[in-house]
Amino acid sequence: MDAKVDRPLERLSAHLADDLAAVDAMIRARMASEHAPRIPEVTAHLIGAGGKRVRPILTLAAARLCGYGGAHHIRLAATVEFIHTATLLHDDVVDESRARRGRPTANLLWDNKSSVLVGDYLFARSFQLMTETGSLRVLSILSDASATIAEGEVLQLTAAQNLATTEEIYLRVVRGKTAALFAAAAEVGGVIAGAPEADVAALRTYGDALGIAFQMADDVLDYAGEASATGKNVGDDFRERKLTLPVIHAIAAADAAERAFWRRTIEAGDQQPDDLAQAQAILARHGAIEATRAAALGWAARAQEALSVLPDHPLREMLGDLADFVVARIR
Amino acid sequence: MDAKVDRPLERLSAHLADDLAAVDAMIRARMASEHAPRIPEVTAHLIGAGGKRVRPILTLAAARLCGYGGAHHIRLAATVEFIHTATLLHDDVVDESRARRGRPTANLLWDNKSSVLVGDYLFARSFQLMTETGSLRVLSILSDASATIAEGEVLQLTAAQNLATTEEIYLRVVRGKTAALFAAAAEVGGVIAGAPEADVAALRTYGDALGIAFQMADDVLDYAGEASATGKNVGDDFRERKLTLPVIHAIAAADAAERAFWRRTIEAGDQQPDDLAQAQAILARHGAIEATRAAALGWAARAQEALSVLPDHPLREMLGDLADFVVARIR
Repeated sequence: MDAKVDRPLERLSAHLADDLAAVDAMIRARMASEHAPRIPEVTAHLIGAGGKRVRPILTLAAARLCGYGGAHHIRLAATVEFIHTATLLHDDVVDESRARRGRPTANLLWDNKSSVLVGDYLFARSFQLMTETGSLRVLSILSDASATIAEGEVLQLTAAQNLATTEEIYLRVVRGKTAALFAAAAEVGGVIAGAPEADVAALRTYGDALGIAFQMADDVLDYAGEASATGKNVGDDFRERKLTLPVIHAIAAADAAERAFWRRTIEAGDQQPDDLAQAQAILARHGAIEATRAAALGWAARAQEALSVLPDHPLREMLGDLADFVVARIR
Repeated sequence: MDAKVDRPLERLSAHLADDLAAVDAMIRARMASEHAPRIPEVTAHLIGAGGKRVRPILTLAAARLCGYGGAHHIRLAATVEFIHTATLLHDDVVDESRARRGRPTANLLWDNKSSVLVGDYLFARSFQLMTETGSLRVLSILSDASATIAEGEVLQLTAAQNLATTEEIYLRVVRGKTAALFAAAAEVGGVIAGAPEADVAALRTYGDALGIAFQMADDVLDYAGEASATGKNVGDDFRERKLTLPVIHAIAAADAAERAFWRRTIEAGDQQPDDLAQAQAILARHGAIEATRAAALGWAARAQEALSVLPDHPLREMLGDLADFVVARIR
């Protein structure tokens, strides 16, 4: 792998180290609850698990590369991490997950009740934090993103195991899962810096395209990757009967026998040991992996292009490398 | 019952009929989701179940009695109803409820997943709505209330069945369950009307005291009422092992035998058929019902008093009658 695109997230973290330390301090201060000790127990478990802080990094990088010198970007970076953590808590209840980032989930360690209510607490805390910035535009962007996230999650619920899921619905689900908060995180960094409208729009486009490229690359790796590249096992999406983009492509091109295969394995969930290999063969036959790979590379290129209007800055280069990096795994 | 205090909520509804119709139209418009039809299904079930709209009425009445002539009070009334509905959806998951207002709950009709995610959607929608008012102060009040609600719910989770629960913790739980949103609903009505600070503070005090009086009256009725007065059955709180104010008072005064009784029935949940009568006898022995009744009447009086600084207005009289009404059931 090209040294330049190697570990762009680590280079962003190093460049933004002081800001990130301030974000961590703010997260710790604001996730506490004097009165309900269960709250910091649960949040410390999750936030302490050491996520990659992608969303706060997007906010900080956007604000800094637009020349921001104030302190509100710290609040906004903590806000997006709180929104993200709240959705993880609720996702684990919805998915009945037992592990995340290699550790047992909060719903397993405590209970679903705690996960639901502590998630609600973090949502409320995130709205307090963003209100403190005094920017109604920021509030509008982040409340819109929250609605898109929740709508996407409900859509995913009803789209799951549904062979009629279209690429349009898929994109909406992906925006809810990843791209809407990536886009909002980058956009509010520009807004708080008072950047020109063209730059704000570019940051939003960058975040959106980055999120979609990332998710599509994951979809490819789930059928065509090696376990070491993803931290997930090949075939997880198939076993969980997810309508990811490769499968949507293959279903659109399926003959009668293939339709019956997808109906049995995805819709009815009746899977035999060699069905994954059979699914991979069908995907290959229709070029479904190739098509998804091409789409992911297209979104990554769109993310790169969006950055071109922004000021020349080391952070701009690192954000560009990050877009490259999310698809480097499938090149 | 005095005709004047008879059905004050109905008289408020009649006085505010046009505003309430506008709130209902806004709720219907904003709870829709073009893309995820599951969302309006769930929300229509709950919002259509015809709650009493207490919180929107508090917002509308506060704004109108402070002379407001704009349109933002409609948005804020819809906002507080959305927050309330979202908390009901999540509460029913947390409590594993099967019925609410005489109808099956959403978690029973659909599933817990839908209740969690549609609740999140309504939270996000509520923040969009309040952002549209352009008032940062309103946003601050309502995001603080949301945090207090979530914190109170988590506290209730850990306080449940815990004999060490104090009156202070009880009040915090009650504020989370009821009073925080009552207080915020009334306060934002005054804020959006540009009322003097003293009036805004009075509206907040009124809502807070009204919510606490209401909850304490419920606690009394649960041990001393008749089923017809509450819509609940006498003894529900005991069977659900809740640390309500009468029980907290009785535990504080308990001798060794009584402590053993509470430990068995509330902490361990080992209840025999005649334990409810035994609990009622212990509560009577320590004047615990009387003490709770007196506390409820005190909070209702505080709500009444708070109104005195507000402009003379038919709505002010009706709000006063409402404070009377919530404790008329236990006089």
